Amino acid sequence: MKLNVGILGATGAVGQKFVRLLEGHPWFEVTAVAASERSAGKPYRQAAHWIESTPIPDAVGELTVETCEPGLDCDLVFSGLDSSVAGPIEKAFADAGYPVISNAKNHRMDDDVPLLIPEVNPEHIALIERQQRPSGGFIVTNPNCATVGLTMALKPLQDAFGIEAVHVTTMQALSGAGYPGVASLDAVANVIPYIGGEEDKLETEPLRILAPLSREGDAGTPSVSSLAFPISAQCNRVPVIEGHMECVSVKLSGSPSIEHVQETIKRFTGPDEVSVLPSSPEYCVVVDEADSAPQPRRDVHRGAGMTASIGRIRPCPLFDVRFVVLSHNTVRGAAGGAILNAELLASRGLLPHRTAG
Amino acid sequence: MKLNVGILGATGAVGQKFVRLLEGHPWFEVTAVAASERSAGKPYRQAAHWIESTPIPDAVGELTVETCEPGLDCDLVFSGLDSSVAGPIEKAFADAGYPVISNAKNHRMDDDVPLLIPEVNPEHIALIERQQRPSGGFIVTNPNCATVGLTMALKPLQDAFGIEAVHVTTMQALSGAGYPGVASLDAVANVIPYIGGEEDKLETEPLRILAPLSREGDAGTPSVSSLAFPISAQCNRVPVIEGHMECVSVKLSGSPSIEHVQETIKRFTGPDEVSVLPSSPEYCVVVDEADSAPQPRRDVHRGAGMTASIGRIRPCPLFDVRFVVLSHNTVRGAAGGAILNAELLASRGLLPHRTAG
Amino acid sequence: MKLNVGILGATGAVGQKFVRLLEGHPWFEVTAVAASERSAGKPYRQAAHWIESTPIPDAVGELTVETCEPGLDCDLVFSGLDSSVAGPIEKAFADAGYPVISNAKNHRMDDDVPLLIPEVNPEHIALIERQQRPSGGFIVTNPNCATVGLTMALKPLQDAFGIEAVHVTTMQALSGAGYPGVASLDAVANVIPYIGGEEDKLETEPLRILAPLSREGDAGTPSVSSLAFPISAQCNRVPVIEGHMECVSVKLSGSPSIEHVQETIKRFTGPDEVSVLPSSPEYCVVVDEADSAPQPRRDVHRGAGMTASIGRIRPCPLFDVRFVVLSHNTVRGAAGGAILNAELLASRGLLPHRTAG
Amino acid sequence: MKLNVGILGATGAVGQKFVRLLEGHPWFEVTAVAASERSAGKPYRQAAHWIESTPIPDAVGELTVETCEPGLDCDLVFSGLDSSVAGPIEKAFADAGYPVISNAKNHRMDDDVPLLIPEVNPEHIALIERQQRPSGGFIVTNPNCATVGLTMALKPLQDAFGIEAVHVTTMQALSGAGYPGVASLDAVANVIPYIGGEEDKLETEPLRILAPLSREGDAGTPSVSSLAFPISAQCNRVPVIEGHMECVSVKLSGSPSIEHVQETIKRFTGPDEVSVLPSSPEYCVVVDEADSAPQPRRDVHRGAGMTASIGRIRPCPLFDVRFVVLSHNTVRGAAGGAILNAELLASRGLLPHRTAG
Repeated sequence: MKLNVGILGATGAVGQKFVRLLEGHPWFEVTAVAASERSAGKPYRQAAHWIESTPIPDAVGELTVETCEPGLDCDLVFSGLDSSVAGPIEKAFADAGYPVISNAKNHRMDDDVPLLIPEVNPEHIALIERQQRPSGGFIVTNPNCATVGLTMALKPLQDAFGIEAVHVTTMQALSGAGYPGVASLDAVANVIPYIGGEEDKLETEPLRILAPLSREGDAGTPSVSSLAFPISAQCNRVPVIEGHMECVSVKLSGSPSIEHVQETIKRFTGPDEVSVLPSSPEYCVVVDEADSAPQPRRDVHRGAGMTASIGRIRPCPLFDVRFVVLSHNTVRGAAGGAILNAELLASRGLLPHRTAG
Repeated sequence: MKLNVGILGATGAVGQKFVRLLEGHPWFEVTAVAASERSAGKPYRQAAHWIESTPIPDAVGELTVETCEPGLDCDLVFSGLDSSVAGPIEKAFADAGYPVISNAKNHRMDDDVPLLIPEVNPEHIALIERQQRPSGGFIVTNPNCATVGLTMALKPLQDAFGIEAVHVTTMQALSGAGYPGVASLDAVANVIPYIGGEEDKLETEPLRILAPLSREGDAGTPSVSSLAFPISAQCNRVPVIEGHMECVSVKLSGSPSIEHVQETIKRFTGPDEVSVLPSSPEYCVVVDEADSAPQPRRDVHRGAGMTASIGRIRPCPLFDVRFVVLSHNTVRGAAGGAILNAELLASRGLLPHRTAG
Repeated sequence: MKLNVGILGATGAVGQKFVRLLEGHPWFEVTAVAASERSAGKPYRQAAHWIESTPIPDAVGELTVETCEPGLDCDLVFSGLDSSVAGPIEKAFADAGYPVISNAKNHRMDDDVPLLIPEVNPEHIALIERQQRPSGGFIVTNPNCATVGLTMALKPLQDAFGIEAVHVTTMQALSGAGYPGVASLDAVANVIPYIGGEEDKLETEPLRILAPLSREGDAGTPSVSSLAFPISAQCNRVPVIEGHMECVSVKLSGSPSIEHVQETIKRFTGPDEVSVLPSSPEYCVVVDEADSAPQPRRDVHRGAGMTASIGRIRPCPLFDVRFVVLSHNTVRGAAGGAILNAELLASRGLLPHRTAG
Repeated sequence: MKLNVGILGATGAVGQKFVRLLEGHPWFEVTAVAASERSAGKPYRQAAHWIESTPIPDAVGELTVETCEPGLDCDLVFSGLDSSVAGPIEKAFADAGYPVISNAKNHRMDDDVPLLIPEVNPEHIALIERQQRPSGGFIVTNPNCATVGLTMALKPLQDAFGIEAVHVTTMQALSGAGYPGVASLDAVANVIPYIGGEEDKLETEPLRILAPLSREGDAGTPSVSSLAFPISAQCNRVPVIEGHMECVSVKLSGSPSIEHVQETIKRFTGPDEVSVLPSSPEYCVVVDEADSAPQPRRDVHRGAGMTASIGRIRPCPLFDVRFVVLSHNTVRGAAGGAILNAELLASRGLLPHRTAG
């Protein structure tokens, strides 16, 4: 029996991507859509200015949009809320007993909230224990759309060698700004060398995600202390529709050979419990050795948007290795990442049926 | 009396930019246009697939295209030749007595050839002495289109503090690839993380341009030994028409304050002998303090395309300072830079009248 | 002594274009800028999100933005107001004695308001007589940005042959929607086959502009009755920055030869009183015979954006002639057209000094 | 048992689309790929500069490219050849006994060659009888990429009312020009109002496709005489990646009501024998009533690129009806259309096994 799913912020760009990616999902079924007062009471089909390139799934199109308050008839909620409102709404849902699988930034750095990439730090799920809500609700988050590609590329390097410093310059797609987002007169044939708040996220989130989970004693309270290596991020908006590109240089411990680094990245896979999940791609990372790979238009759809593509792995005159990583910002970097998080939680039995179904 | 000017590779993208920028020039007049055998014998108007957005100047449109062999009726030549043919042709013209002001890469790193940015290393002009051609001809070059913006930004930092390392990621305009250049199916809504040969130029040319000229003894042979600090360059092609963006991080000697660095960049100007030249912009560098500046579409035309725009000067978690620099790749980075070089040579009396005029 | 000029809606896209085009104008000087309550009281430099590619003129940047109410210290006002508010504001200014030179649609079709293209229907200025405000104020308008190119192309055909029907399909630039205007996710690599209200304007405005002015008796009340031939317009938004393209087919009276039609268009010029105005281009219309002309990126800047480019004049299997016309939507089609209107009024002595100057 | 399929021009843009669309096809299996001398002898993976956004199918990637001469080991060939060479090559293959399913223009207007859209004129297949090759080979073609969308929209109107005249203005995607095709400097933020040869095809091909097949007597020689109504076509290239948009006005016999016309278009379906074919979309035509539909980025993938989207059906001031049609130029308009043609032929038993399989 499928789990019933509600979507918070269902009419926005991320909310729409949730609707699209959940169409035909084997475990989840969208039974509630919630958005702002302005949309509430309307059929979803009418409330959403649909921007996806496949039609609105009929069943969702006919749902009536509700307001973002606990009481939605579902077993868990996905949150595609804007960060200007996500914080208290997500907390209210968790307090009321809902598992909240959020794409918003508000609770990402909370001590007791997993900031989760299933292939990278599934053990962080243990942080949920610290949320200790009597209702049983909790919050789990996925990282910023630019963080996820970077962190997936860094994970095997951290494990194999230890990272000492990271320099990253991003070229991020327009869809990362939501809808209506960037004005076309700012976007066409242009680059904007600034994305508000983005560099800070990119310089901090990977340090938390890559950090080990520790416990005081074997059964003690779990905690995560961010790693301390420096990351320098410069974020740019470029006229691409989907797919964040990142040019990365990494200083590693122990001066490994470039061949060793390449092999380490190529061999990276997530744990088996993740690779069997419905939204898991065959490969979470693919190394593409073509001279001019990866490219957003050619490669962003790898693994249905869940695979990060890495290319141009080569020595860096300043550090040990440099490369280019591409990941799909609205799939792996937003709704798809959150859904994979939910699948992992469900496979561990952490998403009970709360409703009649 | 104006100097008569020939253009080698006159029908190509760089050649066309020479034609456009020289229209109405106070010192230079285009009297000869040369291109491949295929174009030779045709009127320029017919031979050139004109891609500039102002009409072909009438006087040039009526010139008959000649082949690229010495014998052109002019006092000097500008070379917009493709690097696949530029080397021997430029040498032949210099041997025949022509000053050759070249945009091609072929002779840039020759020991006796100035690789010149007038505001940065005018003293390198002395290298011409070493060319010692009986005919009086010589070759002077301008740097790669991505090198020039970077080097103009680095110059005041090298002078004031000394540079220890540079990391640069570029986002380069389509026009940098010439015409037809990048296929639209590779360009639209895409990023290509590779430009053949470009990273190598960006990692070496600034080290030569920023190096001091030295002489063995006061009147000895002049020479330039490239500096040795490491530069790491990652070059990307983005769907922008004009204007190369570069995200730069710099490690400086002596850990200067960010305010000191900002002031140093802001105060940078070329020498007076350059600022009075016809193509010299009022400011060779402008610091723009707006959050999201500079941007190609908004800022590339500063100083008629001869001014580099620098923004987002701020501390770097890894190095001492990072910033974004934008410069016009086909004006300052190609034809306009070459013309400024010629103006400096002319103002120093190094471009004599060879023809009746 | 220059006329002092106020700009209504000065912070918007059209308002900014007024500011830019009036920089250094020989007859007009911007002395007042007005916008919404939100901007009022701020320095213009701070209130305007400047999107032009040249810097804000210093003198205007330092003006304090005022609200859009009569009392502005100027001899006339240009209106770049949004049509949602332009109607009553423009009327209030005219009632208060200001000549209002408007780009807004609100009063275009009023019986007593000239809808003016100086080269096409300068005699319509006489309609001002009917406004009969005791204050001496009046309103003059310029047409929709897509109307102007079409009408300039139709004018010589109407005069020489008489038009029986027109079919027009437009491909309009993003800047026609103002700022922020079209969302980049709707614009990039896309076509939107609908622009609200645009087709109606294109199907009616030319009929009024091309109509003769008549008077009841030699000195009677002037009036204009729109012509009656049918126009079918389909308007599309395309990812172009500046320049509206229009594919036009025209049925003419008398089945003239294609050569006769081509010659007629080529010979079209405005009256001498217009061609001497400061913003008048050398040619109001240029016929470009290249196969693939005109193109927005190549040709939109002809005549500093005041010249319409016409190409592909050839027989139409259905009608008598078809062609493609390009005109600059924010210059000729908006601020530049309004300024040319004001220049014509000034040259006729219709813009007296109202202020100390 | 699947039919073995060869692809002529397999390394080009259309050839690659054949390879992609035939991956996993239930009836056809690619067993031979042929291209120019330059590619022959290389593995396909190496010979093709792959531009599709899914990986090269492994089985095809390992095929060795052969030259375009009869002898390929397959039951039929698809031709994605350039028209500069397609004519004699296709004829040679047909003469040698191969069914040739061609996307090239060369034989489209031959008296004995079906120019086929399965939902529109399946009865034209009878023209194959006239080819009478002893070998059993024959040629069948699909129309130009812009013709197909237009003709699918016209078919129900011709059947229900009779067409008297058509005016069409196209906005065609860059992929229609193949690869490398349009230079990015001609494409970005631009419109090119000319596509060589395209208007002629659009003004003639629909007249042939919509014409009835007639026979001299019940069993006589089949023939098709093109209809005679005039079509006026203006073709433009716009910066869209996939999807040709066409603005169409149609004059019908009998002045039907707009509601009648709308209903007629909505009800259009192909014959049952077509709708059961593997590549047939659920709907060959979808009417989208949203104000601003259809749009290439949003709607081109309808029916996996095989469905034409029609919007804005409304009265035309000049003719009886106007509307906008969008179809996928490289799927329905090229490789996908050809594959559907082959499926129809196979379902009729016209594609026998020639090889061991």
